[in-house]
Amino acid sequence: MKIDLAFSPLELEKKDLREKVVVVIDVLRATSTMIVAFENGCSAFIPVRTVEEARRLAAERNDPHVLLGGERRAMPIEGFHLGNSPRDYRPEKVRGKIVVMTTTNGTKALLAAERASQVFIGAFLNLSALSQRLKEAGRDVTIVCSGEKDLFCLEDAVCGGALIDCLEKTGWATSKSESALVAKLLYEHFEGDILGMLCGSDWGQYLESIGLGRDVRICALTDTSRLVPVYRQGKIFLDD
Amino acid sequence: MKIDLAFSPLELEKKDLREKVVVVIDVLRATSTMIVAFENGCSAFIPVRTVEEARRLAAERNDPHVLLGGERRAMPIEGFHLGNSPRDYRPEKVRGKIVVMTTTNGTKALLAAERASQVFIGAFLNLSALSQRLKEAGRDVTIVCSGEKDLFCLEDAVCGGALIDCLEKTGWATSKSESALVAKLLYEHFEGDILGMLCGSDWGQYLESIGLGRDVRICALTDTSRLVPVYRQGKIFLDD
Repeated sequence: MKIDLAFSPLELEKKDLREKVVVVIDVLRATSTMIVAFENGCSAFIPVRTVEEARRLAAERNDPHVLLGGERRAMPIEGFHLGNSPRDYRPEKVRGKIVVMTTTNGTKALLAAERASQVFIGAFLNLSALSQRLKEAGRDVTIVCSGEKDLFCLEDAVCGGALIDCLEKTGWATSKSESALVAKLLYEHFEGDILGMLCGSDWGQYLESIGLGRDVRICALTDTSRLVPVYRQGKIFLDD
Repeated sequence: MKIDLAFSPLELEKKDLREKVVVVIDVLRATSTMIVAFENGCSAFIPVRTVEEARRLAAERNDPHVLLGGERRAMPIEGFHLGNSPRDYRPEKVRGKIVVMTTTNGTKALLAAERASQVFIGAFLNLSALSQRLKEAGRDVTIVCSGEKDLFCLEDAVCGGALIDCLEKTGWATSKSESALVAKLLYEHFEGDILGMLCGSDWGQYLESIGLGRDVRICALTDTSRLVPVYRQGKIFLDD
């Protein structure tokens, strides 16, 4: 299994994804929040690009099981049921629900990954389960960091590196691209203090500054979930 | 002075370059070759996107001082006077000459940098002189790695990190972006063996495989030149 990594959705668009499995990572916070939501019984996410699209889709469905979720600049969107904080997605709110979700970076990465053979959702929360699932898939892997506005962000690259480290430890990974090598080196640099890396990152500092430091601490937890959500035909769900 | 870094021309296009100085790096081989050419008396480069544009421009000039240079997949272009090897640009060939140049990645990075206040040409060959020049310019710096087909490449990122290291040692740099931090960490990882890093890189291996290993060794030399070419109004030249 060869491992490649795109530091942003923009880079992913330039890569050949045929026959590949893609892992989408948006540590702070979209993919971490999704994993927490599935742990709490959420039934699916439908990622969409714009706030308007989310509102239209929810209105069309006109179903009490369909909720609106997402953020802009990390803040909840007016009239939406849920923000992008893992703490929003409590069991009593999301059990059995479908969330139409729009986030700035994570959604963009998901949509850029659509051409791949399979797409999985990753974060520190589900690294080991994800690594196992990729091994079972048996295809070359491309990790995409959601980044920040199409540019590099530290935390997604470090999490990508942590996944590469996991995959190499299973003995399944045979080779890695230069960007994957760099992500792995980054992970090795920050391995001893993932929480410190997240809190020190630009986005982590921003979240802290607007009172969302507790979210950062949740997203820093490793392997608390065995769930590996998949993205297929416009929907994120658990297929096993 | 704040330091930022784009891992590819694609990323640079997303960045605000007003009031910024940009450094374009294409270690293997465009910017290294240009520095060698200026050391050997070359008068200017005119970077253009396509082989056709280069031919047309040279034909229009119809001047024995204008030469055609460049590569595709590292190979010389039919009918061109010069390739993209530093060894091509010998004094007897390039003294007093203007080279219309087209290379796959370096040219793209230069054209993406055009919006900046000033643009300098960098490589391992001129790191200290470049660092001094940036200090004199007194503006925030954005380094752009030419990369490989709009994607990450190792050697340009490491060279960018080496420049950041130089700038921090002058005490002039006050802060760096997350991508600049990563480039610096990469440089610290490979610092002891720049030649080994270059020879082991994807592009370095490719150059070696087609018999151009000597070029890689030239591009690995550090601080052999005090020249800092500038790119202004479509032309690369020495302005001091």
